[in-house]
Amino acid sequence: MTSDRITRIVLASRPEGAPTADDFRIEHAPMPTPRHGQVLLRNRWLSLDPYMRGRMNAGRSYVPPIEIDGVMDGGTVSEVVQSLHPAWAPGDLVLAHAGWQSHAVVDGESLRRKLDPSGLPPQTALGVHGMPGFTAYAGLHEIGRPQHGETVVVAAASGPVGATVGQIARLRGARVVGIAGGPDKVAHVETDLGFDVALDHRAEDFAEQLAAACPDGIDVYFENVGGKVFDAVLPLLNDFARIPVCGLVAHYNATGPAPGPDRVPQLMSLILTRHLTVRGFIQHDFIALYPEFVREMGQWLRDGRIRYREDVVEGLERAPEAFIGMLEGKNFGKLLVKIAD
Amino acid sequence: MTSDRITRIVLASRPEGAPTADDFRIEHAPMPTPRHGQVLLRNRWLSLDPYMRGRMNAGRSYVPPIEIDGVMDGGTVSEVVQSLHPAWAPGDLVLAHAGWQSHAVVDGESLRRKLDPSGLPPQTALGVHGMPGFTAYAGLHEIGRPQHGETVVVAAASGPVGATVGQIARLRGARVVGIAGGPDKVAHVETDLGFDVALDHRAEDFAEQLAAACPDGIDVYFENVGGKVFDAVLPLLNDFARIPVCGLVAHYNATGPAPGPDRVPQLMSLILTRHLTVRGFIQHDFIALYPEFVREMGQWLRDGRIRYREDVVEGLERAPEAFIGMLEGKNFGKLLVKIAD
Repeated sequence: MTSDRITRIVLASRPEGAPTADDFRIEHAPMPTPRHGQVLLRNRWLSLDPYMRGRMNAGRSYVPPIEIDGVMDGGTVSEVVQSLHPAWAPGDLVLAHAGWQSHAVVDGESLRRKLDPSGLPPQTALGVHGMPGFTAYAGLHEIGRPQHGETVVVAAASGPVGATVGQIARLRGARVVGIAGGPDKVAHVETDLGFDVALDHRAEDFAEQLAAACPDGIDVYFENVGGKVFDAVLPLLNDFARIPVCGLVAHYNATGPAPGPDRVPQLMSLILTRHLTVRGFIQHDFIALYPEFVREMGQWLRDGRIRYREDVVEGLERAPEAFIGMLEGKNFGKLLVKIAD
Repeated sequence: MTSDRITRIVLASRPEGAPTADDFRIEHAPMPTPRHGQVLLRNRWLSLDPYMRGRMNAGRSYVPPIEIDGVMDGGTVSEVVQSLHPAWAPGDLVLAHAGWQSHAVVDGESLRRKLDPSGLPPQTALGVHGMPGFTAYAGLHEIGRPQHGETVVVAAASGPVGATVGQIARLRGARVVGIAGGPDKVAHVETDLGFDVALDHRAEDFAEQLAAACPDGIDVYFENVGGKVFDAVLPLLNDFARIPVCGLVAHYNATGPAPGPDRVPQLMSLILTRHLTVRGFIQHDFIALYPEFVREMGQWLRDGRIRYREDVVEGLERAPEAFIGMLEGKNFGKLLVKIAD
């Protein structure tokens, strides 16, 4: 049924700044054996996401750091090979969190949901119909709350979170401005995803372009990037604007303090004088919404009202290189590693 | 009934940094005459509040700036002298926004509420039972939401907002740590106001003292100061902490950029990784709560469950000096100018 060895990728060292190939190590290990209540999984798809960069650091982040020599973790679409848990049977296709490896033993209770092989492509459970899509859905539903006619600005608009934020906001009646890096992504955001405007943050006059694209100011800025996009957004924020913060990919590789002056006093003054709400979250904070998301997003996807793009890398051994590239903005769409058919 | 001249204080020049006496000018002018729908007021009490510093600047703040040569504005307890509005009659004591002057003509519609001379002292309508008290009440009710057993930290704890925040939070079952400047204020906060702990932000080891006073971290930080108190609070914030921002008095007199490094990336990272909510507000944002506040706070005051302290300056001509001192932390309690008996 399976070979008796598994392949896995572990954290070899904590990166300083941008991760390099040396921070990862590929290993082989004996096939693990499930105990009572556990299942053995064969991983078919691995999701690569920016939050993983935070877990490579030693410091406090969303969740405890990955240990040195520990398997890199991540969401997977996996097939149940052997089950010692009553809810799961061999052949089931499931949404799991089984990490950067070919096989894994996990608790049956930890499996998130069974995927219907006859419905949407299973790997959408890692993207638009999974954690990134739910991040977009929950952040808009609980924090951004775009109203009809308001202006919503989304950074990393060709990425799986940003693309979904913008499309949901348009379904809610908002005017949506997307920001992406490079002409191909910008064209995709405007043409394929149907945003009202798409802008290239690499343009020298990006801040002026953004101001021109938001003649009525900005009511919701969905923050998943930070850096100079945030700086360009700040002066355009309207009174009572909402800023859901779900990522800061521009900062993840920072190694030292940013040059002065210290702009915290100005940021706090802006929060005060414009009555802003700035709120950090991860999708799990709003997990009660998840069933509603699975249902509503599933319908949107089947109806073609939400579109998505995948960037597929073949082979687990290419995961580190793909992950490093993603932090540099090289992926185009939801980054997935196809581990096995 | 009145002399035929009024006294008023106008904005002579926009301060750079801390205001000085030269930024104000005392003037005399003819007694104004009400038209249909208006009332002539004789002001008895004037409230001095930190927000007025923002209005002295030319830039965008909560509200448009005061014009040069315009009367300094502010809340007042006033007596109706003459009324051409059906809701008001001579002798009525009212809560108004009639500014730094002995008399004013205002629209009858603009008067906020009639004060009951047989109830609470009328000037409480400018403090604990008015705007500062409502700021505390609304910010806790809508943003801070202290839960039983949580830790609430309040800056400027001897001031009218902070004192009320802390006492309401204790009534809601929270543990409350107050921060004030100097031993007299610290003693007042702990002894008279009944906070669990009071700390002096002037202490050299203030940050260490705050950490020791918050062994379970901080769940709510009511921000009305900024500066180094905010810096000491940040590392202690718990996941899902809430920061209502209603003032930043430490920044109001800033004239230039703060020295680097730029800590905006760290602040945004903290907001993200600790799931913080940072929200700026003024009490008017939650005006629908005002009747409930007037009722509940009135009851607390009559029952002696909320205490307050007033710092009264006699004579309108002393308002500039008192206001300048307040921005330096010289007042002790709600700062009021007694204009007339």
